[in-house]
Amino acid sequence: MAAWARAVRGMLLDVSGVLYDSGGDGGVPIAGSVEAVRRIKASGLKLRFCTNETQATREKFVKKLQGMGFDISMAEVTAPAPAACRILKERSLRPHLLVHNDLVAEFAEIDKANPNCVVIGDAAENFTYANLNEAFRVLIGMEKPVLISLGRGRYYKETDGLKLDVGAYMKALEYACDVQAEVVGKPAKTFFESALAEMGVPAQQAIMIGDDIVNDVGGAQRCGLRALQVRTGKYRPCDENHPDVKPDAYVNNLAEAVDIILQQL
Amino acid sequence: MAAWARAVRGMLLDVSGVLYDSGGDGGVPIAGSVEAVRRIKASGLKLRFCTNETQATREKFVKKLQGMGFDISMAEVTAPAPAACRILKERSLRPHLLVHNDLVAEFAEIDKANPNCVVIGDAAENFTYANLNEAFRVLIGMEKPVLISLGRGRYYKETDGLKLDVGAYMKALEYACDVQAEVVGKPAKTFFESALAEMGVPAQQAIMIGDDIVNDVGGAQRCGLRALQVRTGKYRPCDENHPDVKPDAYVNNLAEAVDIILQQL
Repeated sequence: MAAWARAVRGMLLDVSGVLYDSGGDGGVPIAGSVEAVRRIKASGLKLRFCTNETQATREKFVKKLQGMGFDISMAEVTAPAPAACRILKERSLRPHLLVHNDLVAEFAEIDKANPNCVVIGDAAENFTYANLNEAFRVLIGMEKPVLISLGRGRYYKETDGLKLDVGAYMKALEYACDVQAEVVGKPAKTFFESALAEMGVPAQQAIMIGDDIVNDVGGAQRCGLRALQVRTGKYRPCDENHPDVKPDAYVNNLAEAVDIILQQL
Repeated sequence: MAAWARAVRGMLLDVSGVLYDSGGDGGVPIAGSVEAVRRIKASGLKLRFCTNETQATREKFVKKLQGMGFDISMAEVTAPAPAACRILKERSLRPHLLVHNDLVAEFAEIDKANPNCVVIGDAAENFTYANLNEAFRVLIGMEKPVLISLGRGRYYKETDGLKLDVGAYMKALEYACDVQAEVVGKPAKTFFESALAEMGVPAQQAIMIGDDIVNDVGGAQRCGLRALQVRTGKYRPCDENHPDVKPDAYVNNLAEAVDIILQQL
């Protein structure tokens, strides 16, 4: 944490594992994170919430976080589903959706008749044997299967333990159909670029804070951002020996990250 | 189909997609295959049934096939579960099982307390979101995760359509835990070698007949066997353009394969 910290003008915050731990009960805020978001906003730094969560529409997602006390609005959130909708429209793709029930509304305006691609998100309880077989059959029936994945996370932490994320199911379909998914969301470069553009801050003056060594830290660094890994959420000590990715710094939690960054300004 | 066909002394037959099409109703024999098995036996050729099916104990599996009219006994079947049990015993591994209910009995004599590995088979309806998460948590909780997979098939054909096979779920766990599964069953070399030893025929004098271009044909060829692909079961025309594997011949079905081979003797 050195000279570059003084140049920071904008922050991208991962949400699950940084702001709160998700769970069947809606989840709980991580100690100090509500206040940390308030302090970022008071500092005048630009702020963008960058999430791969696809278990709810952004509207519901934001309401849940507001209910925990976070100062957050829908316009401040960059999420995979709207990005996927842009791609579907541009390429006249009609998706078969394998997503969480609460995400379906994000695709309300998309033609889904006679599907010519599969969109997979973190479908959670919807990842049934029958639903996965159905998505597989749609894909294998195409001459050139198109699979769009809302993220490629391996797993995430809920209050009752670790859960498989969309990336694991994406790999299952990729293997079964011998196809490579197009990933929308972190760590896709276009996703970070959208967030930076929405914030109006160049990569060199932005910092990403996340709990995922690959999708948050590695993804952001490949776009020219600095990136911190918090030791909350899905963080595991072995992340610090990752063969390919090294964060610009580790912090115990978001509150500590904000302390350090605001001290440099 | 040339000189080598005259040297054939033993045949390995894949079962699902070659002898019968499986399905919720137990499945149906493929036309001509009951008679074809009878003709192989009458010819004096050695015969071994080589299956990756793990939805039932060999006992139930054989009874089902006998019910369809096949001349088959348990002693003639090479299957992944007994091979896995040998490995578990040799290495003092205690499995967490993610398998079909009907396969559990094959592991009756194996200590399963305090698991130090995961064994995954074609669990079918047992591939629930909850069960996959549970297997994942067992693996991710190990210092060095050990995942043993009963096959690596992508999908298979049942009477009501294609279904994802164990390989797809294996890939999901491999990705989530950053681990490589040890595959027991086709296309593992040890599996074909066991079948050959049980039959008492060297690879150069044996022929494999299967519907799976990778697991049957490719696997057998890498062990020095000749291999035919039938155009039944999961066969798809695009298999004939496979970049890596080319069968020694294509046949429309098992009956045709037996016609050709017996003519050469």
